[in-house]
Amino acid sequence: AARRLESLDPAGTVFAEFSALALKHGAVNLGQGFPTLPVPKFITDAATDAVKGDGLLHQYTRSEGHVRLAKALSAYYVDKIGRTLDPMSEVVTATGASEAIYSTIQAFINPNDEVILMQPFYDCYPAAVTLAGGKPVMVSLRPPADQPATTSHDWKFDVEEIRRAVKPGVTKMIVINNPHNPIGKVFTREELESIGKLAVEYDLLVLADEVYETLVYDDSVTPFIKFASLPGMFERTITVGSIGKMLGVTGWKIGWALGPPDIIRAIWMVHQYVPFAVVTPLQEAAAVCIEQAISSTYFQDTQKQYTHLRNKFHAHLKATGLTPTLPHGGYFILADTTRVSHVPLENTSSTKAAPTAAGDRRDYRVCKHLTEHALVTAIPPSAFYDAVAGGPLDVPAKLARFAFCKNEKMLDDAGGKLKAYF
Amino acid sequence: AARRLESLDPAGTVFAEFSALALKHGAVNLGQGFPTLPVPKFITDAATDAVKGDGLLHQYTRSEGHVRLAKALSAYYVDKIGRTLDPMSEVVTATGASEAIYSTIQAFINPNDEVILMQPFYDCYPAAVTLAGGKPVMVSLRPPADQPATTSHDWKFDVEEIRRAVKPGVTKMIVINNPHNPIGKVFTREELESIGKLAVEYDLLVLADEVYETLVYDDSVTPFIKFASLPGMFERTITVGSIGKMLGVTGWKIGWALGPPDIIRAIWMVHQYVPFAVVTPLQEAAAVCIEQAISSTYFQDTQKQYTHLRNKFHAHLKATGLTPTLPHGGYFILADTTRVSHVPLENTSSTKAAPTAAGDRRDYRVCKHLTEHALVTAIPPSAFYDAVAGGPLDVPAKLARFAFCKNEKMLDDAGGKLKAYF
Ligand SMILES: CSCCC(=O)C(=O)O
Ligand SMILES: CSCCC(=O)C(=O)O
Repeated sequence: AARRLESLDPAGTVFAEFSALALKHGAVNLGQGFPTLPVPKFITDAATDAVKGDGLLHQYTRSEGHVRLAKALSAYYVDKIGRTLDPMSEVVTATGASEAIYSTIQAFINPNDEVILMQPFYDCYPAAVTLAGGKPVMVSLRPPADQPATTSHDWKFDVEEIRRAVKPGVTKMIVINNPHNPIGKVFTREELESIGKLAVEYDLLVLADEVYETLVYDDSVTPFIKFASLPGMFERTITVGSIGKMLGVTGWKIGWALGPPDIIRAIWMVHQYVPFAVVTPLQEAAAVCIEQAISSTYFQDTQKQYTHLRNKFHAHLKATGLTPTLPHGGYFILADTTRVSHVPLENTSSTKAAPTAAGDRRDYRVCKHLTEHALVTAIPPSAFYDAVAGGPLDVPAKLARFAFCKNEKMLDDAGGKLKAYF
Repeated sequence: AARRLESLDPAGTVFAEFSALALKHGAVNLGQGFPTLPVPKFITDAATDAVKGDGLLHQYTRSEGHVRLAKALSAYYVDKIGRTLDPMSEVVTATGASEAIYSTIQAFINPNDEVILMQPFYDCYPAAVTLAGGKPVMVSLRPPADQPATTSHDWKFDVEEIRRAVKPGVTKMIVINNPHNPIGKVFTREELESIGKLAVEYDLLVLADEVYETLVYDDSVTPFIKFASLPGMFERTITVGSIGKMLGVTGWKIGWALGPPDIIRAIWMVHQYVPFAVVTPLQEAAAVCIEQAISSTYFQDTQKQYTHLRNKFHAHLKATGLTPTLPHGGYFILADTTRVSHVPLENTSSTKAAPTAAGDRRDYRVCKHLTEHALVTAIPPSAFYDAVAGGPLDVPAKLARFAFCKNEKMLDDAGGKLKAYF
């Protein structure tokens, strides 16, 4: 195999690992983030309409993106980005946000270029960077030092730490995930602007992964602000989004990158030789759904539905003593697992000299234990940290990530099982 | 943009370029290879069934491939490869054959490794190789020296030329496309075995792109033989296939790679960070369709239908004097365009010193001219040759590639327009 694979975790993504574990033990799977809620009828209807005919919706569409979907995205984003995106040159659709991120990084990162990631980070960012021969450089989002975070807003970064991480001319990009997975943090205008200033100062591209943008809760300390809407930022920002998250259909595998024409063209240059194009009939269906959602209450209704699920599962976790952090966006909750007291609070071998193997990390052991004994599966957040560089694995050691994008029955079932276990 | 983009044609793929040109002139588009035939009812029914429910078929499936599809492929290939593929470890599904090829090359090709391609080649092979930092090395399939080929079997390669192209330890892979796009050649057992021997001698991987395997015509001088079925070859072969070609639904963007577990695992290591997974509901539908097709006459019926279309369009081309080569497989016909006599037979600037720009090549000019004046669009085959290396562009200069995977009306319309023009 090629050397570029040596930088990847040989176990593969944590999601596959813990979904398999959940299946093996018959546990309630709150690991991987995909909804188990019924898909609304206007969405299944649009999909059915797109595939039931015998015509050209079954054949290749435009490689840069199905025109109707690009137009629907342009209409959806006009208020949010504060400009009318040209559907033909400022949008490229991809096989999910994953491929949009992958193709973006291939398009801009040369071997030895550096990319700044905030940890915890979604696990595909460092993989995409190292597959391009680049070097991920970590800065930290940190919870309060002495007590579990109450809300996701308690997690902060230090812009001076980012500045110190930048190597002028070597650092090419910073990735910002807002709302944040796994924390649920929604970044304030001030926080975003401090990053924007650095981006201008050091001429960095900003990859804004905003896949959870439609799921921001009313009690957030800040409204959601699209990075590309900040003054002067559109020109250097690649905005990534996802139909899977926007419509609750992760299996459609449709995402996009938005940005100025020269950036989108470069991403497409890669994209045309990766999948060539994206599934035609479901791009058509996605377009129809966005057109309808814009002029209905779908996004508000979904936000209300998820608020209810979030509050419910937050209360369940509180009742167990697994102190949860209230997330302001997205569909994950971090919880403090200090209560799982028979697993010692320390990682087994977390020294910088000897990188901690996944199995030695406390959060992996806790999540495995809860799967096996409480029959509830969560994701160990150290999967979103850089173990190899000897990162601060003491932070995720005490945490577990639960997905609450699940039907009420599953959430109640998981809550009941956790209460019975403790 | 990253340096790896510099090796790509800045114009993008030829298919987008000529589809746009066809649209602009209202020409009958026999360029890009996608069927315009009605999709059979068992296929649209399977797709409808997969999307109409509100459940988990709309969410992520297994990253390595939807289990039901992997099992259906294993059942389909058992006779053809002569072994039962383990669906869990010897199959990985991808976003079309394109992504299967891309992820395979990323998984095995290091910077400066060499990959042998036969030209004419499908245009994504050299792009995938150079995007990985590898070097495509060309060997030639050649038509008879003095007259247009009568059938695709008249195109031959010289195994000694391949041997001379191999650099031991540097050459890592050879790509074979069988049935061949754009020639339509179906390789004989003797030809395949001669390549297999070299692969063993120099320890090469073989990427066997066999997407047109179900479209081999009765008058072929040889039956179609899967490379992986040759004695000793399974262990070093990556077999690529496509639902788009197998079921005539190119817009579903579902393909696969088959091979031994260690090879498939390496491809998946890349795949998990490219699209992560492939569209769930259409993988389910594809599985249902393969299960049904295996126990029906679908493949035979389709082969008969395509034989009819091939013969019809071959006759149309003959009648115009654009001497066609009868293809034994796939859905493209090459035709000699010497008759387009007002375009001189030479490329404008085809010297090895100055690489020939696309617009200077005779076949590009002929295909543009026919689009504009005969209102029929074909693809210039020099798009499948290495212009930069100063390849033998005199061969494609006299050719055009027509796709005949189109409904009878389009083929008759194109035939009529070409006859009217000449
Ligand atoms: C691509 S699989 C993971 C889904 C997800 O976004 C998550 O669980 O964090
Ligand atoms: C991926 S677009 C091209 C379709 C095709 O296989 C061809 O026309 O050769």
